[in-house]
Parts: sequence; C-alpha cells; structure tokens
Amino acid sequence: MENKALEMHKQWNGKLETVAKSKVKSREDLAIAYTPGVAEPCKVIAKDPEAAYTYTMKANTVAVVSDGSAVLGLGNIGAYAAMPVMEGKCVLFKEFGNVNAVPICLDTQDTEEIIATVKNIAPAFGGINLEDISAPRCFEIEERLKEMLDIPVFHDDQHGTAIVVLAGIINALKVTGKKKEDCRVVVNGAGSAGVAITKLLLTYGFKNVIMCDREGIIGKDYPNLNWMQQKMTEVTNLANEHGTLADALKGADIFVGVSAPNIVTPEMVSSMNHDSILFAMANPVPEIMPDVAKAAGARVVGTGRSDFPNQVNNVVAFPGIFKGALEGRATQITEEMKLAAAEAIAGLVSEDQLCDEFIMPEAFDPRVAEVVSEAVKSHIK
Amino acid sequence: MENKALEMHKQWNGKLETVAKSKVKSREDLAIAYTPGVAEPCKVIAKDPEAAYTYTMKANTVAVVSDGSAVLGLGNIGAYAAMPVMEGKCVLFKEFGNVNAVPICLDTQDTEEIIATVKNIAPAFGGINLEDISAPRCFEIEERLKEMLDIPVFHDDQHGTAIVVLAGIINALKVTGKKKEDCRVVVNGAGSAGVAITKLLLTYGFKNVIMCDREGIIGKDYPNLNWMQQKMTEVTNLANEHGTLADALKGADIFVGVSAPNIVTPEMVSSMNHDSILFAMANPVPEIMPDVAKAAGARVVGTGRSDFPNQVNNVVAFPGIFKGALEGRATQITEEMKLAAAEAIAGLVSEDQLCDEFIMPEAFDPRVAEVVSEAVKSHIK
Repeated sequence: MENKALEMHKQWNGKLETVAKSKVKSREDLAIAYTPGVAEPCKVIAKDPEAAYTYTMKANTVAVVSDGSAVLGLGNIGAYAAMPVMEGKCVLFKEFGNVNAVPICLDTQDTEEIIATVKNIAPAFGGINLEDISAPRCFEIEERLKEMLDIPVFHDDQHGTAIVVLAGIINALKVTGKKKEDCRVVVNGAGSAGVAITKLLLTYGFKNVIMCDREGIIGKDYPNLNWMQQKMTEVTNLANEHGTLADALKGADIFVGVSAPNIVTPEMVSSMNHDSILFAMANPVPEIMPDVAKAAGARVVGTGRSDFPNQVNNVVAFPGIFKGALEGRATQITEEMKLAAAEAIAGLVSEDQLCDEFIMPEAFDPRVAEVVSEAVKSHIK
Repeated sequence: MENKALEMHKQWNGKLETVAKSKVKSREDLAIAYTPGVAEPCKVIAKDPEAAYTYTMKANTVAVVSDGSAVLGLGNIGAYAAMPVMEGKCVLFKEFGNVNAVPICLDTQDTEEIIATVKNIAPAFGGINLEDISAPRCFEIEERLKEMLDIPVFHDDQHGTAIVVLAGIINALKVTGKKKEDCRVVVNGAGSAGVAITKLLLTYGFKNVIMCDREGIIGKDYPNLNWMQQKMTEVTNLANEHGTLADALKGADIFVGVSAPNIVTPEMVSSMNHDSILFAMANPVPEIMPDVAKAAGARVVGTGRSDFPNQVNNVVAFPGIFKGALEGRATQITEEMKLAAAEAIAGLVSEDQLCDEFIMPEAFDPRVAEVVSEAVKSHIK
C-alpha cells in the first residue's frame, strides 16, 4: 500500500492539472479568449468587481491554503512536504463537489505573514479553505481573515470535522434515544478539532461538555491554556470538575476523541452511562478499537477508518459546504450553515438503515455533496 | 466581436478549471491519493524537498501573478478586473506549452507586499510568470524575487516581448542584409517592454541603441528618469544625442515602438536609412500603419496585430520558455536562454519562406513551443 501510493504519486507527477475550458485552436479563438476580446470582461469588472463571479473562475474556485505546520499524523513537515496532501484535498473538492481548487503551500509559519498573504491572493478565489495549520494560530488566522475578506474562509480541520462528528452524534442520539440536553459529553483533545467540535456541540444544544487534554479535565484554574482554550473554559466544565480522562468519562454518555491511540481503556468505557456513544478518531489507530469498546459496553462506535463501520470522514462535508457557499455566493460559513450541513448529512441515513453500525452515510454516496450544498444555500441571507 | 467575447466569457464562467489526474472512485483510490497513502510522498519530500518535483504538480505548474497595475491597453484596473487576462494567459500556457498555470491576482500594489506574497506562495509552483505590473516597480519586483527564489521568475511583458522582437529582428537582418554592429536602433517607449528589448538587443550584439520616450531622446542629463531608465543611459545613446523621436530616426536602420498610436509619420520613415525595419507594436493601433510605412520607404514592417504580416506575439515565446525551464529544472531564465529562444523562433521561418512579409513564425505553428523549450533546455547548466 505504501509502495503503491508512492509509485502512483510518481506516475501522476501532480494529482491535479489546470485545463482550459476555452480552447484556442484558431486566431479567432485567441482574439476572444485573449487580446483584444478579453478587454471586454475586464472593463465590466473594473466598473463592478462583483462581475468577476460572472466572467471568471472566481465563481467556482477555492484556494486550499496550508503552512504545513500540522499535516495529518505527520506534524510540522513544512510547505513542500504538505503539497501531496493539499493536492489530494483539491482532488476531493473537484471529484466530490465539482469545485475547482488550487493548492497554496506557504513558505512561512508566521501568523501575520500568513494573514497578509492570504488576503493578498484572495481576489482570484471564491473561497479559502485553510488546512493543517497548527493550533492556536489557526484560530486567530481564521478569525482575522473572516473579518478581512468578503469570501468564505473555512478551516476544515476545525469545522469540517465538527460538522461530520455532529452528524454522527445526531444519528447516534436517534439510535440510543438519548436527549442532547441530558448528555454528558467528553471531548478529548483540545487542539483545532477538539475546540471546534465542542463549540458546535454547544451551538447544537448540548449543555454539559467537558474538554480534556493530555493532563486531564480542562477547567478555569488549569495551567498553560492558550487563549482559545481559556475561552472554552467559560462554556465547558461548568461544574469546574478536576481529574483525569477516566474521571471525566464516569457516567458520560458521549466520548469524542481527537487525540492519541489506545488511551481509552475498557474500564473507562464500562464506567460510562448505558448506551454509550464513542467517536474514537485518532488516526490510524483510534483511542480504543471498536470491538474492545463494544465488549466493554459501548453501543455506538465511530472511527476515522474506512475498514470499520461508522467512518467519520470530512469528505462528506467540505466539498458540499463550498459548493453551496459558492453557488449561493455566501460571504461566510455561518453556524447555522454548519448545523444544517450536519443535519443534512445525518438525514441521508434512512430510518430503515439507521442502526448502531450505520449512523454515517458512505463517503461515496453521490447524494452527499448535493444535500450539503442545498443545506448551506438555504441558510444564506 | 466585443459582444461575442463578453458572451463567451459568461458562458465559460472561468476559462480555466482544475481537473484531477488521480480519479477517486473507490475507497482504495481515496486511500492512495489521500489518507493514509498520501503520507508516503509527504515523508519523502520532508527529507528531500527536491522530491516535490517527482511527486507533486510543482514539476509542471506556473503561477501567473499580477497586481493589475498595467493591464494590456487598459492600465491600472486592479486585481479583479485583471482576472480575465490572467486566466487567458493560463489558458495559453496550457494550450501552447502544456504547462499548468494558475492565475494569482494580488490585492496589493505595494512592492514589498508583492515580493513577500510571491515568496510565500512559491513552494507549490515550479515557476513565476509576472504579468502586467507597472514600471519601474516591475524591475525591482522581478530582480528581488529572482534573488530570493530557486525557481524561474520571468516578467513576460519585459522578456517575452524582447525575445519575440529579437526573433523578428534576426530575420529582418537576414532579409535586408544589414549587420547588427552597424545598425542604428531606436526603441520608442521606456517602460517595461522598451527597457527589456533594449537590454536584449545590446546583449545580442547591437552597439548603437537609442531609447526615446514621450519627450524625445533619453540621455544622461534627461530629467525625471526612474532608476532603471537612468541605468539604461549608461549603455544607450553613447553619443549623448539630444532631440525628438524624429531626430532619433534620422538615418536609423531599425525602429521598435512599444508606445502609442500614430506617432511615427511618413516623413520620419523617409528620413531613416535604406531598407529600414519597423516594429510598430502599439495595440490595437500601431505607431504607423504598415501600408503607410511601406509607402514611405520601409522595407520590413511588423506589428502586434494578427491581421497584418509579421505579427509579433508573445505567445510564441512564454509557453516554450517555461516548458523548457520546468522540464530541465532551470532555476533561472538566463540571458543565454533568451537569446537561444529568439534564435529558435527565428529559425522556424525557413529560407524559402523568408521575405519582407514573412519574418515571424505563425502563432499556431505547432513546432514553436517545442523548439523554444529545447533551446532553453540546452542552456541549463
């Protein structure tokens, strides 16, 4: 598998290419697509920049931007080594959502430089997908760019993951009959994904969410929190509990892991509430293997892997999110859109399919991008 | 024509698209092109950044970068309005040279910001084509980026134009029997193209070149020169002549105009040396119409237009230049490469074709990109 991946990447020599929609086979073609004809759309756009959406690829093109600081399970491998992942992401944008995407790998990991660079290249793009930028810089970069730009800016590691997890949880609640207001939820991992998942669960209506990191339960008096984690203590762990992950899981209904392999034990699962729900998404080895979790009493288990049931895969979210945002000319991806996207993804699992082992639609379900796109569009103001 | 161009741009809604070479139709496809397989090329590149040329689209992709400050005949129309031109350029890169190209239109016209932005986005690209950036900023931006980056940086308005003009002049010399050492050359227009043409003609071996601008002959004591024009006075107009364009043209062998419509009169042409050569490239209306110039005694006349003989069109240069530079992994486009490219373009007109009315190969000659590419590659050290 590793060898085949390497060999195929060599054969492709780039997984993406640019292709002309306007073929240039004659002098007349050239005169229309380039000089002198091209001056006409230029003049129209010069008077009304919005016309760029009518006459240029801005209408349907996303930049996939990374500084290579937090790539997959590989960590800070830099701009060059991040390229295959960003190209792959662009491939998924096109293949799943029919959205054009261009990989932009940045030769800087300085927050201010990243913000300035993305702002400067924005005119050619209809949206910015931030990718694999480490926390907490990713929070500031995204927030500041959202304020500056009039096109959607979306950090997929945060929001794509959060949307897909919420979709899974929506269906897991249906299966187990649990009510969101009553659930005790533990999110383990306080980086970009953990923070975004927690925020979206709270927005959805969960009341009792506890975040943990390597040292245990995060609370107001916890040392060494970054500014975003500090902010999260205002809305999580309201009872100001202290303790380890094991302590947090006692009586919990839902566990969401975006952390490290094998850190959840069968004993921890047994200590959870009945009909417990676990999303163990560490890759490639989850926080606990599904069969082990099940044997210890878990009812619904999801992972990031395609070889187990209930795969939690961002690919069911981001292509449709941007497809809808671009088609509807959204200027932001709002919380309402994220919730609607999660509901739409969950809704693709029909009542007669829905069961402990089938809470997520397949990544290749051809309906996914379309329903997500429509959900996003229906929330554009 | 104007209406058709506008209508077609609307239909295209972007003249370019990104297309996946790695199709993703199955879980296995996904596992190879994206996670977990994609980690393999990432790890190889992390150890050796040069491997990006083997495993990613950097190998064959150029960024077409503009700040929209000097677009075609339209002037400073900004980033959004420049998009159709940059997309068109990208189309030509692909259609003529099979080089992938991505339009990058910058939301800044500040020299330092442009330099920083291009440096930051460089990792994903194998070359940078600067386009339609106004003089004299374009000179500094290109020079500084060439120093900073290990990929070719090429301002096409300068060097593409210079290469094609030189190609035409090489053949015009053959036709007229003139020797470069003996020619008096007048270049009218002292912006990016005029400066680059002058430099390349001097590198080629012309000794006597006079630059003019709106006010007349440029010399050492000429007021209000920018730093690049000042530098040019050290190698041009060595006799330190003063006067108007009309004065400059008296006894001249070659006129190259990158200036304004109808500023060369029949009287000026008549005052030139016998067998005079004129490249009147103002667009769409040349410095003098070919029939008028001919009637006044000119022997060889070229313009930028496709409806007259001897069209001087950058499209015979830039696609092949980058094709060769990328295939041969050149880190710079050197003076030797530019000269070789001009010779190669000139060489495509066979001896039995060569005449006053046929000194340039056709833009659609399928051999062009290939011979230019080979010429560039043969000068990579």
